[in-house]
Amino acid sequence: MIHALVLAGGSGKRFWPLSRRATPKQLLAIAGEKPMIAETVERLRGLVPPSRVHVLTNKATVSAIRKALPGVPAAQVVGEPDGRDTTAAIGLGAVLVSKRDPDAVMVVLPADHVIRPAAAFRRSLSAAAAAARRDGGLYVFGVKPTGPATGYGYILRGGKVADSKGVPVHRVERFVEKPDLETARKYVADGRFLWNAGIFCWRAKDILAAIARERPAIGRSLERIRKGGASALAREFPRIEKVSIDYAVMEKAADVRVIEAAWAWDDVGSWASVGPYLPRDGAGNAVRGDVLAVETTDCTVLSDGHLVAAVGVTGLVIVRTKDATLVCRRDRAQDVKKLVDLLEAQKRARLL
Amino acid sequence: MIHALVLAGGSGKRFWPLSRRATPKQLLAIAGEKPMIAETVERLRGLVPPSRVHVLTNKATVSAIRKALPGVPAAQVVGEPDGRDTTAAIGLGAVLVSKRDPDAVMVVLPADHVIRPAAAFRRSLSAAAAAARRDGGLYVFGVKPTGPATGYGYILRGGKVADSKGVPVHRVERFVEKPDLETARKYVADGRFLWNAGIFCWRAKDILAAIARERPAIGRSLERIRKGGASALAREFPRIEKVSIDYAVMEKAADVRVIEAAWAWDDVGSWASVGPYLPRDGAGNAVRGDVLAVETTDCTVLSDGHLVAAVGVTGLVIVRTKDATLVCRRDRAQDVKKLVDLLEAQKRARLL
Repeated sequence: MIHALVLAGGSGKRFWPLSRRATPKQLLAIAGEKPMIAETVERLRGLVPPSRVHVLTNKATVSAIRKALPGVPAAQVVGEPDGRDTTAAIGLGAVLVSKRDPDAVMVVLPADHVIRPAAAFRRSLSAAAAAARRDGGLYVFGVKPTGPATGYGYILRGGKVADSKGVPVHRVERFVEKPDLETARKYVADGRFLWNAGIFCWRAKDILAAIARERPAIGRSLERIRKGGASALAREFPRIEKVSIDYAVMEKAADVRVIEAAWAWDDVGSWASVGPYLPRDGAGNAVRGDVLAVETTDCTVLSDGHLVAAVGVTGLVIVRTKDATLVCRRDRAQDVKKLVDLLEAQKRARLL
Repeated sequence: MIHALVLAGGSGKRFWPLSRRATPKQLLAIAGEKPMIAETVERLRGLVPPSRVHVLTNKATVSAIRKALPGVPAAQVVGEPDGRDTTAAIGLGAVLVSKRDPDAVMVVLPADHVIRPAAAFRRSLSAAAAAARRDGGLYVFGVKPTGPATGYGYILRGGKVADSKGVPVHRVERFVEKPDLETARKYVADGRFLWNAGIFCWRAKDILAAIARERPAIGRSLERIRKGGASALAREFPRIEKVSIDYAVMEKAADVRVIEAAWAWDDVGSWASVGPYLPRDGAGNAVRGDVLAVETTDCTVLSDGHLVAAVGVTGLVIVRTKDATLVCRRDRAQDVKKLVDLLEAQKRARLL
């Protein structure tokens, strides 16, 4: 049986003012009709039913996520006592899954990425699951770069080690951290480097064993959580070392394999990336809501209510919500996080 | 006795979304604490009391202007049946003033300009009024150009013809229409060209005689209005030729004189001009209301309510009101009018 672990711990700073602590990106319909997390779960339909979907999120969003995922049993939407990065989250997910089915294969999915078409994605997951069930090992999905991105880690694809359901499975030569632009250009030119999309597949017991091997202290914490109940979770989880699964395990483990994506992937990392998912006006601006753009090009404008009028501007993101408005140069969209940090420092809780 | 005629017929398109038909620029506190028209009347204090101030405006704003000018008798705030340009408005004002005092001197003032300091302005007006009472003639005020503006008409100052209360009075060589940039540069370099600020002074009977001489048909209409009552006004006024006082009279009359302004003048023609009257943030942005500007320079940001956050932008005007938001390149602020024309064409009455 394949289980899915959806990681939904995002704090929603980058899509302010639409995203807030209580409604981070994964709960917004940024790239479609439904909240991103609902599309993530829907994408699995036919491979993993909602009854085998587990969600890890922060406590502030548990009830909103339960509402957004009516098919997922409420008990399987778990609020982490504390954000402890992906090794802790994936370890906890693997504990939950393996308690239910000791031989379970699990896929790990970020809650807020866009992946199309879903059928091709399911074929990749299915191939990885079959290989994991048969051969063991840790499987990661690599995306052919469309440009020299500096915001992702890269995977150097090695030789082919198997075919699973007609999908080639490659050895991983090595993982590399987010590169600078020059290095990223080399990676793209090389042709063997893939973006690490943060999507994984393995048997729950294999990833638990790998964590225990590479990070014994985390392994012991997870074992105590497995044996204990809610109180053990509350006690142990916040003590777990904060470290990413890439750094703690994937870069070190010997049995890591990569499947190259035969689907389009977009992590929609900031307002700069949402344009393709919005309607276009006559001048090619991406607009949603009551927007009037006059001699305006290359802008992304969202209004959830009243008229937003743009005159003679270019390359901007404009987002108007009921209680705040953002005007940002699109190539500075990463800095919206800084703005939210500033609002936090100013203790403007109503806007967070 | 000096009377003042305040021309307040502006339709308020250029300061949208703050200005609307019912609250055009002259009713906004754009450059100070009070509505611009209240500051215009206040500026006369000591020279012309509110009891001798007359206001011509459009019907939609009569009651708001009466509220904004509690010292001005309500009957002296008159709604024009129809906007007929400055010859009709000034002629009507001169009729109203001369009925009360056949020998009255009147000053004509736009309702929505910034003039500082007020004392220097009153000295100029007082000098012009004394000259008009003594010698007759039509007096206009010229502003030393601070740059090659193409949005104003210019006055070529001729030789000095008199001193009035220590203020030099010059002949007007000629009026010139709004020039192109090259011509404007020549005017500035020449040194004798002044901006026509649209501020005048004369005896009411002299301007009526000049209108009757240069535009006999308008003169006859005004005479019928003088003899008739409200019904004559309603009947005659909309038929008056739409023509500016500059074009119909000033450019043709022989007895026109100019007094050079010893005060700073600003017609605050668009959002691009309001910066100097707003508070500054640390980065030199002009801001009013709840504004957070991060790595943002050279912007004018107003919010009448919720937070407006700007990130990484420069040279923008951002104005947020309760029912609309504007984002405009500052050097395109003139085009806000186009936007409002578009809203009119779309019949979005609630936003006009």
